[in-house]
Amino acid sequence: MKVGILGSGMVGQAIGSKVAELGHEVMLGTRDLTKLQDWLGHVGGNARVSSFAETAAHGELLFNATSGGGSLQALSLAGEANTNGKILVDISNPLDFSHGMPPSLFVSNTDSLGEQIQRAYPNVKVVKTLNTVTASLMVDPRQLADGEHHIFVSGNDAKAKAQVVTLLSTWFGWKYIIDLGDITTARGTEMYLPIWLQLWGALGTGMFNIQVVK
Amino acid sequence: MKVGILGSGMVGQAIGSKVAELGHEVMLGTRDLTKLQDWLGHVGGNARVSSFAETAAHGELLFNATSGGGSLQALSLAGEANTNGKILVDISNPLDFSHGMPPSLFVSNTDSLGEQIQRAYPNVKVVKTLNTVTASLMVDPRQLADGEHHIFVSGNDAKAKAQVVTLLSTWFGWKYIIDLGDITTARGTEMYLPIWLQLWGALGTGMFNIQVVK
Repeated sequence: MKVGILGSGMVGQAIGSKVAELGHEVMLGTRDLTKLQDWLGHVGGNARVSSFAETAAHGELLFNATSGGGSLQALSLAGEANTNGKILVDISNPLDFSHGMPPSLFVSNTDSLGEQIQRAYPNVKVVKTLNTVTASLMVDPRQLADGEHHIFVSGNDAKAKAQVVTLLSTWFGWKYIIDLGDITTARGTEMYLPIWLQLWGALGTGMFNIQVVK
Repeated sequence: MKVGILGSGMVGQAIGSKVAELGHEVMLGTRDLTKLQDWLGHVGGNARVSSFAETAAHGELLFNATSGGGSLQALSLAGEANTNGKILVDISNPLDFSHGMPPSLFVSNTDSLGEQIQRAYPNVKVVKTLNTVTASLMVDPRQLADGEHHIFVSGNDAKAKAQVVTLLSTWFGWKYIIDLGDITTARGTEMYLPIWLQLWGALGTGMFNIQVVK
């Protein structure tokens, strides 16, 4: 499958490396084409780096792996014509570092970044997921407790959500996936970030996740 | 020990019943003295019901089990002279039902109800905890997966927090308690409520909790 990944930070590189390793044709979209030469050297033939617009046009499936503050601008650069009708796996978090640490959220409570993106691009099928774990866990959950922990999905399009659930399971190895509901439930996983950051501090590592016990 | 519990809903009754069962002298504070006769009948000799002020005066240790929207008023009725210097175990959540379901939070992100209470009563030792689970789990975590799941504490006073950690363990049976930091970390556990409510919907039960896997 042709996969377009908007964003070239730790998350974009982790997703890109894994998806390329699986044999898919990966394109990573970035503002700065020069900074990913090292990454391309590691990943090999299946991966390319390009602009947001070319990356969106390339992808049959898209990932939003930009930082939350840059997501809407990246999607604007990607262009509506290149994203219309496609699934966008939205991994971003609306972290606001402008007031120092810990970051607050620039949208929360009665709205979410997932909803903002869905409203701005009504023809894109936004599925929020993976935003509750560190980058390396996203694509390899079984490195932690043999995968005995949970990931969540939120989105309005049931078919798109089902496809994303399948790829979370088959591509990355997620064993436990909970469908929280429509895209408004992105509020829940985005508002989980403050306790995630606190747990990172308390545990001294970002290599953790939560298991829902019932 | 003499324990004062502000609030007489499900949470106050659950805490009160358990603490009375353990042999402590419990007083439950309420605006409506008439509504707890049934509860008193079940709990027996160690429990009484009174006003917020008498309850606060009675308690060597206090619990805030009021609904979030009523917490500051309940504490005001309890009176500074009756609460000064005491530990207040704050279980409240700032749920705002005024815009329908699901509730939003009336304070979040850059502040929390735990912090509002601590600022309003600087001589009270506020320890936020137990606000991330349903009432019956608070006092009996081992009914679920033999207690293999986590509870969190936030507070500025290290000694008070240590005392609360001890009572969570010895009174209620909590096996896994994570100290998130000072009272500002109450933002994390309060902002966890939206995903908690979504999980309640997705799982069809409030009888669940999270285990932090690392």
